[in-house]
Order: sequence, then structure tokens, then C-alpha cells
Amino acid sequence: MTRLTWGMIGGGEGSQIGPVHRIASALDARFDFRAGALDADPAKGRAFATRLGLAPERAYGDWKEMLAGEAGRKDKLDLVTVATPNATHYAITKAFLEAGINVLCEKPMTVTVAEAEDIAATARRTGAVCAVNYGYTGYPLVRHMRAMVARGDLGKLRLIVVEFSHGFHADAADADNPRMRWRYDPTQAGISGQFADCGIHALHMASFVSGQNAKTLSADFISAIASRKLEDDAMVNVRMDGGATVRLWTSSVAAGSFHGLNIRVFGEKGGLRWAQQWPDQLQWTPLNGRTETIERGMGGLSPDAERATRIAAGHSEGMLVAFANIYADLAEVIEARRMGAAPSPLALHFPTAVDGLRSIAAISASVESAKAGGVWTEARPPSLRA
Amino acid sequence: MTRLTWGMIGGGEGSQIGPVHRIASALDARFDFRAGALDADPAKGRAFATRLGLAPERAYGDWKEMLAGEAGRKDKLDLVTVATPNATHYAITKAFLEAGINVLCEKPMTVTVAEAEDIAATARRTGAVCAVNYGYTGYPLVRHMRAMVARGDLGKLRLIVVEFSHGFHADAADADNPRMRWRYDPTQAGISGQFADCGIHALHMASFVSGQNAKTLSADFISAIASRKLEDDAMVNVRMDGGATVRLWTSSVAAGSFHGLNIRVFGEKGGLRWAQQWPDQLQWTPLNGRTETIERGMGGLSPDAERATRIAAGHSEGMLVAFANIYADLAEVIEARRMGAAPSPLALHFPTAVDGLRSIAAISASVESAKAGGVWTEARPPSLRA
Amino acid sequence: MTRLTWGMIGGGEGSQIGPVHRIASALDARFDFRAGALDADPAKGRAFATRLGLAPERAYGDWKEMLAGEAGRKDKLDLVTVATPNATHYAITKAFLEAGINVLCEKPMTVTVAEAEDIAATARRTGAVCAVNYGYTGYPLVRHMRAMVARGDLGKLRLIVVEFSHGFHADAADADNPRMRWRYDPTQAGISGQFADCGIHALHMASFVSGQNAKTLSADFISAIASRKLEDDAMVNVRMDGGATVRLWTSSVAAGSFHGLNIRVFGEKGGLRWAQQWPDQLQWTPLNGRTETIERGMGGLSPDAERATRIAAGHSEGMLVAFANIYADLAEVIEARRMGAAPSPLALHFPTAVDGLRSIAAISASVESAKAGGVWTEARPPSLRA
Amino acid sequence: MTRLTWGMIGGGEGSQIGPVHRIASALDARFDFRAGALDADPAKGRAFATRLGLAPERAYGDWKEMLAGEAGRKDKLDLVTVATPNATHYAITKAFLEAGINVLCEKPMTVTVAEAEDIAATARRTGAVCAVNYGYTGYPLVRHMRAMVARGDLGKLRLIVVEFSHGFHADAADADNPRMRWRYDPTQAGISGQFADCGIHALHMASFVSGQNAKTLSADFISAIASRKLEDDAMVNVRMDGGATVRLWTSSVAAGSFHGLNIRVFGEKGGLRWAQQWPDQLQWTPLNGRTETIERGMGGLSPDAERATRIAAGHSEGMLVAFANIYADLAEVIEARRMGAAPSPLALHFPTAVDGLRSIAAISASVESAKAGGVWTEARPPSLRA
Repeated sequence: MTRLTWGMIGGGEGSQIGPVHRIASALDARFDFRAGALDADPAKGRAFATRLGLAPERAYGDWKEMLAGEAGRKDKLDLVTVATPNATHYAITKAFLEAGINVLCEKPMTVTVAEAEDIAATARRTGAVCAVNYGYTGYPLVRHMRAMVARGDLGKLRLIVVEFSHGFHADAADADNPRMRWRYDPTQAGISGQFADCGIHALHMASFVSGQNAKTLSADFISAIASRKLEDDAMVNVRMDGGATVRLWTSSVAAGSFHGLNIRVFGEKGGLRWAQQWPDQLQWTPLNGRTETIERGMGGLSPDAERATRIAAGHSEGMLVAFANIYADLAEVIEARRMGAAPSPLALHFPTAVDGLRSIAAISASVESAKAGGVWTEARPPSLRA
Repeated sequence: MTRLTWGMIGGGEGSQIGPVHRIASALDARFDFRAGALDADPAKGRAFATRLGLAPERAYGDWKEMLAGEAGRKDKLDLVTVATPNATHYAITKAFLEAGINVLCEKPMTVTVAEAEDIAATARRTGAVCAVNYGYTGYPLVRHMRAMVARGDLGKLRLIVVEFSHGFHADAADADNPRMRWRYDPTQAGISGQFADCGIHALHMASFVSGQNAKTLSADFISAIASRKLEDDAMVNVRMDGGATVRLWTSSVAAGSFHGLNIRVFGEKGGLRWAQQWPDQLQWTPLNGRTETIERGMGGLSPDAERATRIAAGHSEGMLVAFANIYADLAEVIEARRMGAAPSPLALHFPTAVDGLRSIAAISASVESAKAGGVWTEARPPSLRA
Repeated sequence: MTRLTWGMIGGGEGSQIGPVHRIASALDARFDFRAGALDADPAKGRAFATRLGLAPERAYGDWKEMLAGEAGRKDKLDLVTVATPNATHYAITKAFLEAGINVLCEKPMTVTVAEAEDIAATARRTGAVCAVNYGYTGYPLVRHMRAMVARGDLGKLRLIVVEFSHGFHADAADADNPRMRWRYDPTQAGISGQFADCGIHALHMASFVSGQNAKTLSADFISAIASRKLEDDAMVNVRMDGGATVRLWTSSVAAGSFHGLNIRVFGEKGGLRWAQQWPDQLQWTPLNGRTETIERGMGGLSPDAERATRIAAGHSEGMLVAFANIYADLAEVIEARRMGAAPSPLALHFPTAVDGLRSIAAISASVESAKAGGVWTEARPPSLRA
Repeated sequence: MTRLTWGMIGGGEGSQIGPVHRIASALDARFDFRAGALDADPAKGRAFATRLGLAPERAYGDWKEMLAGEAGRKDKLDLVTVATPNATHYAITKAFLEAGINVLCEKPMTVTVAEAEDIAATARRTGAVCAVNYGYTGYPLVRHMRAMVARGDLGKLRLIVVEFSHGFHADAADADNPRMRWRYDPTQAGISGQFADCGIHALHMASFVSGQNAKTLSADFISAIASRKLEDDAMVNVRMDGGATVRLWTSSVAAGSFHGLNIRVFGEKGGLRWAQQWPDQLQWTPLNGRTETIERGMGGLSPDAERATRIAAGHSEGMLVAFANIYADLAEVIEARRMGAAPSPLALHFPTAVDGLRSIAAISASVESAKAGGVWTEARPPSLRA
């Protein structure tokens, strides 16, 4: 194993997602943090980067400076994570891909479907790795669900019921709080609120587990807090290209829910149930049989799940490990390319630019359907309507 | 307290619902079981009735014989429960109401909206009590939810997420089993399968708890087992007349679910969560506060909940008590009428012919919406479109 | 099926246990309530009995009057339930047994071991049925546990971890409340407080499930509220005569517990877990296998469990049904005797005078052991020290 | 923040605990891994260390070589973790402390009480930090429990019920497996099996949360698998020096348990409940109030808990973060010493040599009590019997 180098754009002091990426990338000691443009304020960004131990010449003031600096180095970064405001993802990701630097982009990958098509095409053309951080698919038992579906344990899939809800935006009296308000303001958040923020994670998870993608959908959006211009609660029905139906609920006004990312998968031969809040247990009910609890870390799991697990059963492993698995996949793929070798197929589980593109298209279709009173709407991006 | 007399039509030997009604009606020793026409086969029905202890002259061969027999008695029945095949509910219920005998009708009250309108009008005209057995609203903590909503603990309601799903019909190999097949055969079950069978309980519960009724709805029906002509899985979004949105999922192919009747209610001031499988606990999350567990049988409950509770906290009370509460309400109302007194308002919680009518209208609207690709459709019965 | 007749001593207006017995005995319509001496105050008892529908001549003023009245009738009672203060159980139970009337006695059966020996001997001698109400063993899944153990699913039993705790007596400020105080006052409650009140249910359940009985034990008693002369919290280790060890915790000061009667059974081939608060699910972990959820009402259960179940899976059945199963067993045994037939072996699951005797002996041994600093102490009654 | 340097003794390739320490120490980027003697086989240890990125001159063959090498460096290690077989802990820990290098020692700190007294004295004398890895106290909500107790939320503590059980050693057919057998072999494991291996974590947690220490205890040990010379299941009652009673159960034959480290704490004013398998929720029941769920990451937590938390509520944080908190405490204390400053009192939560000493004394006392039939036995180490 070689050590790889990693950098970050965004994720400055006080950001929530910054430390998560730094911990997740460091957890397996595969990546060394070597460069960053961490803050919209260049001086603050440089100072914070230095405090985190970066060399001064790689503590950049902004992403353009970083691109110029890194592109010129022999030891340019192996991977850069983009965790800036949504509207900037497209330009930054495209520029680094063009420079031959692998990218892990926070979601949403872009604002428009056209931009997303362009990123997907750029990744294909340049050969650089472009990943998108639908990191919840990194949990070992989520990967085990995917493996069970793929090897046919459930038979043909019929139905996926998935939700991702919380109540952090339920307080109308707090709706003008700037940390919350921007998400429901079209001038800042784009065309969708809660569905683009959380619901899309649930749709990606449904795709990841099922191996199927959204084909058409019907959406109902509401603004439970009436002053919001974008939805804070949505229900979306989806027909997948493999025949399954997805029923997806997402809400930010569900007092009592805490990032309740729950998924139930039903096929001809049985059903699965998993919840992010207790990620180390998976419930499996074979047709006409008893529900069994599958424990992370115990025997009999798929190679996908075993590879993604680090500690013994009975000890909760947690979300940081899930995110670290995305980095572990990327490390393996990047190292394999360096060596001119093929990576393990098990490392190809990270979400790519194509997943990013499909997600942007699904958000766009949901907005359109909801506006039209729930009319069933094409959900695939133009380039993937084969 | 006087003892009241009770009879049953249907619920013969081997039926599932028969013993439930006999236990529930007897549980509080308010009703004595005195007459019945228990089976489609007159001889079997009479024999079974006699074995259950009925006097031979009140062990009837069919409902018409029973109507004739009882109508002529001075001590005619105080209440008759109708638990026959769906298509016969209308005629039987109407006939007994016309004879001045109070009726508890199994759901669905009728097959068509017009019939349901007629039953509601008949009940109004004759003054006889007509109840419909949406018995799941009899749980003490369901009544407590209703009381909390009514007294404003949640503020204005925003959202109700409700489901009623099971996996008992998930086995395609068993789909021709006659106990299952008829539910998906329009010639026997009518216009709707799983939504009319289970989903409608969930919608009634949402109405009961919220004090609001369905105004318009958008439905998606699927037949997960393709040979079924009626839906075995449905998602329905509903706008209630009080402003709340209901998101309702029901399925009979959800392996791992066991009559999973779960409800979450979200308002301006907090959220509630309850599940039938563990009916003695209710989760309440006040806005910006911690989730609290409300235990049945402990202090601080509403009069509605206290009245509906029989045993100490920590001991599961169960569904039979929930159904017994419907009978207890009816006993109190019937006795009050006898006395010429007003019953306690707390006894007026049982579902009535109007609830039955609203339910039939919602089923009809869901079928129509699903056929039209999810178009938002009027859900109120003609007589209640004020 | 014939109808049997039933009477009650104690359980007057306002008592907690009275309605539970009346509901449980009536639930299956096997017993008709025909006689009672319901209150320490004869006039109140007669009035209440009449209000409950008893004939005036069988609404007795006290148990002696009732004994005299019933003993002289041709249609004397088939079964009488004794639910009076503990100190009176012995005399009443003995007298009715001597009169040839079957008895269901509330626990504790007697105050002293010598009295308990006498009741057991009286029952044997007279041939009357003497049951003791350790009613928690009536739950279908408790009976299924017993059946699994008996048929060898767990192999040789190693360990039973059982608890029965609540927090209803945790408030020191309320310790002088008469409803609570008497339980910790040796002049009223006898030699033991919480262990005799609740812990003994847990020990009986361990015996019921394992088919083994206490042989020696070591106890630790504390009075968490120091003013109490009897224990409000106890830990008892027991060696069973079949080789298993029981670890039993009981408490009345465990704020947050609600009659938490939980049992875990571990054998050579796997482990079981069940909790009274959610009685419709049983967890079974075969050795080296996954934990399975056994649902009450689903297929694959033992005949013992199926016989004890009345409603479909997914609907909580509750404690009243558990108690009703004790009555159902008694009805079957009493009817079989009438017929001169042998009852089903499945009906022989109710706790008998011998169970009552073993319980009194175990309480006595625990008190002795706790006083002696946890010394291991003989737990069997003199007559059963083989 | 300065970067500190860290080394490891033991934790070679294939060890379970090695990666846990490497991840936990790296998680917050406070420690750089710089030196190690990782394997009993010097060549394997050096090779593995090099693969992990250590400089060849700090990839040592054994701990003596490492001590010599590090003691002579200007940049000697800030902290060394000792994760070798139990019998070697004493000599290694003592030697590094004498050399002025801070130590985090895996548990048990030593084999005998005398050795433990010596380590505690050595730490005191040399001033080096000596921590012992009772790492389960690093969970944010465990620290919150401690804070709640310390600030009086529970009033005077009455009772702590704690367990740490698993079923990984339940298979008698596998009992000769060397990975399992040594734990029950006195020549390798010392005087205690399961209690020393797992139970002692539970006792430490009870001490940590309560702020009280074991004074006397009464133990019952059994070998459920009869061929074992040391116990595989134990129940220990403990009187704490602050007046609380602890009831502690530990087992390795409890099929269905997975490192079930559960604690319930009961005081005059309420009760707490926490389980390691779902570490992000804590149940709090105030006296006469409703049970509340305290979520990690939400508002209203103690500074201790907030400091120990890294990600948002609703995302499971897991055991690696708990262990990382021990390292974070140590980093803060070590850095403060370097600066000549006082560390935050919140950093003083890591378990020290005194905790290690108390634990060894409690193990010794339990063995003695169990042998003597549960006699209450002094549990304090000689030097702490004030």
C-alpha cells in the first residue's frame, strides 16, 4: 500500500462537513492531507489550513490558486474533495477533472441537468475519477443489502419504501434563521428544497441497493411552513427501470425524526429493513419465514460487507466509517490505476458522476411533476434514455 | 348499569372475526349474547349458535329469519353485529336499522357510494345507532392522540404519515389460494383490493386522530403480483379539509410487516408516533424538545384514554380491549337512549355511518385517481361537499 | 362444551385485580359468574355483587356465608377465585378445597411454608383442583418457550436471567402512602417485600419455562428507601434441580421500568429472550446462528402456543388473554373431570398448589440467605427434598 | 494545537485491537504514529511497521529495543500504547513510565494487586501519565450520564444494574479452539475468566458514571461449559463507597447478546438507561415523570458530552469515536503539560492507573468471594482502604 495525497476545497473552520471528510479520509491511513483552499475568505482559509498542519505553499487562498499550484507539481494531489456552496461545484469539479486530478464532489454535483451531463462526459473523456458523496451507501449492511439483491436472495424486486426525514426545520418561529432559510429560497437553493437536500440520498440508496434506476416518477411537494417557497416535505413515487416501484418520503418538519434514513426492500422471496440510526443491524424476512437479525461483523456476510467492516460485532461502527469506506474505495481505485492494475470489483461501489447526473435529473423531474399535480414524468437524464 | 342484549350475523365456526366480536362484546359484561344467524349454511349456523349457548328459537338460519324473529319480540336485541360478506352489508344493515335495531357493521359498510349515502340517511332518519367497525381507534393511546390534537398540543396539524402493511399475500405461488385470491378479484372484492381492505383503516385513523376528513387525493396503485387485477400495494396522498396532508402507504406484499398499522402526526408544536404492534406506548416529541414515552395506564392521560383503559401500566392490553372499547361506547350510548339521557361525550368516539360513507367515497376516489395517473381527485361523498 | 359456574371472594369495587379476574374468566365464555363475597364490608359486597348481576341469594356477605351457601347447593360452583388479603388465603382456600370446590388462589398461596405444605396436601387428598395465579405464564409465547425447552431446542439449560422490576415505589416522599407502605411493613406483608410481591413471579416463570425447580439459592436484599423494614430491591442467584443457574433481579425503585418482566434463557444450543411489555414477539438465537423473531400467531408454533392464541399475528393480544388462558386450562380440566375423561396434557399448564408451595419455600429461603450475608441456602420445601 | 507522537507495542498484523488503536489515535489528527514494536516475532513486527509507514529505525523488534531507542531520542514519543499479552503489561508499562514516556495500557493493567499497586505508585512518582483502556467510558452519552449524576439530577444513587454479556464462547464443541480456550485456562488467563475479561469493564463503567468505587462485594461464578477451569458467567453484587449497590452480570455464553454492555442507574430522583449497541440514545426517567430520549448531538447536553461529540444527531457515531475520546483526553493533558498549563477538567475523564488498580483488586475480591460461597469480601486495594 502506498500513501496517497488528498486535498480539500471548502470545509473551513466551523463547517459541519469539513471535519467529517478529514476524519473519514484519515481513518484508514491511506490518504495524507496535503493541500487545501478551505474558506471563502482566503486569509482565513490559509490560516486554518496551516493550523491543520498543511505546508504554507499548499495552504491556498482559493480553488483557482490551488488548481494552478497543484497542476504544476510533480506530486500533485491524488484526490481533491469539493465541499463548497452548491452553485460552485460544477466549475470546480470540471476544472480539476480537466487537470487530471480525481475529484470527490459533495452533492448535488451540479445545479442543472445540462451541467451534470457535462461533468459526466468530462469524467469519461479525461479518465479522471469523479465521485459524488452519497456517502450513506458506505455502511457495511447497506452494501450487504445490495449484495443480497444482486445475488438473487430477494428474487425480483417489487417495492422499495424509503424515507429520509428530520424535524430540524419544524420551528416556524425559527424559519428566518439564515442557516435554515436559504434551503427554501430558490435564489440560493435552486429548484428544490428538502427533496434535493435529503430525499435524493434516499433515492440514491434505493438505486444502490436495487441496482435499478429511476425511469418515471410522480411527486407531491408541500411547504408545511407556508412562507417557504420551496418544499419542506415531499412524497415521490418512482418506477425503476428494472420494474420495482419506489415510495419515497422526505421531510424536514417531522419532529421526532433524526436523519431517519430508513429503507425497506421487498422482493418475490422476502423483505429487508434497515435504519441509519441503528446501522449495525439489518432485518431480513425470507418469504413465509421468520425475521432474522443480521449483525454487522458476524459471519455469513457478503464479501462487500466484510470488506467494509473494521470492528467486532456488538460495537456500533457509525457514520464516519461509512464515509471512510467511500475514501477506501477511492484509494483502492486510484492505487490500482497507478499500478496499471484492475481494482477489485468490490471497490467500485462509490457513487460516480453518472449517479450525480441521475440524481440531478430526478430532482428536476420531481419538481416538474409536483408542479403539474403529480403527473408521471420522465426521470432519466437525456443521455441515458436508451 | 343494565345488561344489554346482543346478536350477530355471520362470524360462524372457523371465521376469524367471529370470536373477536364475541370476546370484545363480552369483555365488560355489558352485553349478553342472545341471538344469531351465524353461517351461510342455516343448519350449521343454528347448530353452532346452540353450542355457543343461544336459545334454540334465537338460533336463526339466516338474517331475514332473524330480522323477522327479533322484530316481533318485546325483548328485541339492543345491538346486532353484521360480519357477513361485504356485498351483503348494505341490505342487512339497512333492514335492521329500519326495524329500529342498532347495528355495528363490519367494514366496508357498503360496496358503492350511493348505498353508503343511503345507509347514512337511513341511520339519520330512523334514529337507530349505526356504527362501522374501524375498531383500531379503540386503543387508549389512539384516543389520547386524538385528545392531544383536539386540545391543541400539536398546534395546527401539518402532516400525517400512516401505514398499514403486511406480507401475508406476498407469496406468488400461493396467489391462487381462495382465501387470498378473492381479495384481488373485482367480481368478488369490488373496485379495490388492499386499499379497501387495510388502507382504509389507516385513513380512518388519520381522520379520527386529526379531526379532519379527506378532501382531495392522489393515488398510485400497483399489483406487485402481476396476475392480480386489483392492487396489492398503494400509496395515497390526501389533502384534508383542515389543511393537513396525509401520506398513506398500504401493502399486502411487505414481507416482515405484521398488520403494521403505524401513524405519525406532525403539527406546528410537535410530533406523535404510535404503532399497533406495541400499542401501550406513544412517542411524543414537543417542538425543540426531547421525545417522551407516554405509557398507557400512567398518570397524566386524557379522560378519553383513561376511560378506555382497564389494566395497570406495564401489562400489554391488546387489540381485544381496543375492540371492546367500541362495544363499551355503544353500550353507553344505547343505555343513555333507553334512559332518555345524554351519553358522555367520551362515548361518542365510535365510528358511525358517516365515517363509513366517507371511507367508501375515499376508496372510490383513490381508484379513480390511480386509473388517471395520480390526478388529484375529489374525495368527499356528494352529500358532504358543503 | 358445557358452561361452568364461577365465583369470587374479594375483588370488590375499586380493586385492581377484581376486574382482571372477571374479564379473564368471561373472555372465552366458558364460565358464568354466579356467586361472590366481594368485599370486607358485607353490605358493600352484596350491593356490588348485585350490581354485577348476581342473584341476591348468591351475593354473599363473607366467605364463610358463601361456603355454607354454596356447599349446600346442587349446582354448587365449579370454581372459586380467592383474591382477598394475603393472610386470609390459607383458611379460605383450605375450606373450599375441603368442600370439594375447585380454587384459583391469588399469590402468595399462604404466609408460611407449613401452611403451604398443608394446602398442597389438602389438594392432593381432596382431589379438588387448586391453582395459584402465577398468571404471567399464560402468554402464548411463554408457553412456546417452555415447549422449546421441553423438546430440546436449547439442549441442556445453562442459565436463566430474569427480572421483574418497576419504579412505582421509588418516591421516598410518597413512602408513607398506605397503598405502598404496607408492602414493606412486616406486620402486614410478612417476611419479604418486593421479592414476595414481584420477584416470585419471575422465579415461577423461570421454573415454568425450564421445567426445573429451585434447589439452593443466595440472596441479597436492600431497602433502597431506608425507612423500609422489608426489601424493595433484591438479587437472587438460584441453582435449579436440573442444573441451570437462575439470576433474578427484582426492584420496586427502578424508575423507568413498568412491570418489566423479562426473561432470557440460555442453553447449549441457543438462547431465548422475551419481555412482558411486548409479549407478542420472542427472540430466538440458535447457537452460531442469527437471532430470529418468533411472532405470536404465525405458523410453526408449538401446540401449546397455538392453543393459547386467539387473534391474528400483528395484533397485540395482551395480559388479559394470558390470564384467560389460566381460566381456559381450568375449564378444560374441570370439564374433563365431570366427563370422567382425561384433559389434554396441554391444559395442565396452570400453576398448582405445588407451585404455590415451592414459591413460599423460595421466599423463606431468600430471606434467610439475605440475612446471613448471601449464604447458599436450601430452597426446597421439606416435603420435596427428595 | 501541536501534533504529538505516538507508538504502539503489540497490535501486530491480524490482531483485533491493533487497528482500533491506530484508527482511534489518528481520528482527530492529534497523534502521528511514529514508532512500534508490533509483534512477538521481531522480523514480522518490523516488516509490518514499515508497511504501515514507520521509519525503519523506529520499527523495533521488541519493546526493550523500543524503550532503548526511544529513551535516547530528543523527539521521544509522547505516548505509547501497550497492547501485548496480559502477563507482560506490568513490566512494559513500568519501564516506559520510568523512562518518562506516557502510557496507555490495555486492560488488565497487571496480573496481581501488588503489581497494580506498584504501577499506580510509579505513575505518581514519575509524573508520567498512565492511562488504562476502559475505553467504553469515552461515549458521549456515558459522559453525559456521569455529568447528570455529578450535578445531582438523580439525587443520591441507590442502585446500578449493569451487564456486559456475549455469546461468542457458547459453543461447547468449539471450546478447545485456542482463541477461546486460553481465556478459561488459569495458566494463561490468571485467576478469572469472563469477569476479568468483560465484567470489569461494566464495573468500571458503574464507577465512572456514579463517581463511587467498590467497597465490598459478593460474587457467584459458574462455568457453564464444565470443562472450563475459570468462570464463563458471573454475577457480582457490590456495595459502593458512596452507598449505591451495583448488580453486575457478565457472561460469554449468552447466545443472542453481542457485547451487550448495558447500564441502568437509579437514584432518588430518577433513572437512566443506556446500551452500547445503540450508543446514541440515552433514556432518562425523572421520578414520577415520563421517560425521555436524550439524543447524542442535540442541544441541552453537558459540556462533557458536547466535547466528546463530532457529528450531527441522527448519525450513529460509534465505538471508534469513543476510543478516540480517550486519545483526545490524553492529547489535551499531554499538550497542557508541555505548555506548563492546566488541562481542561473535562479532559481528566480517561481511566488512570488508579482505576486499573481498583479493577485488579475487584477481580481478586470476586474470585475470593465466589470461592467462599458468596461471602461479602473487601474489594478495595490495600492502599485505598482509607
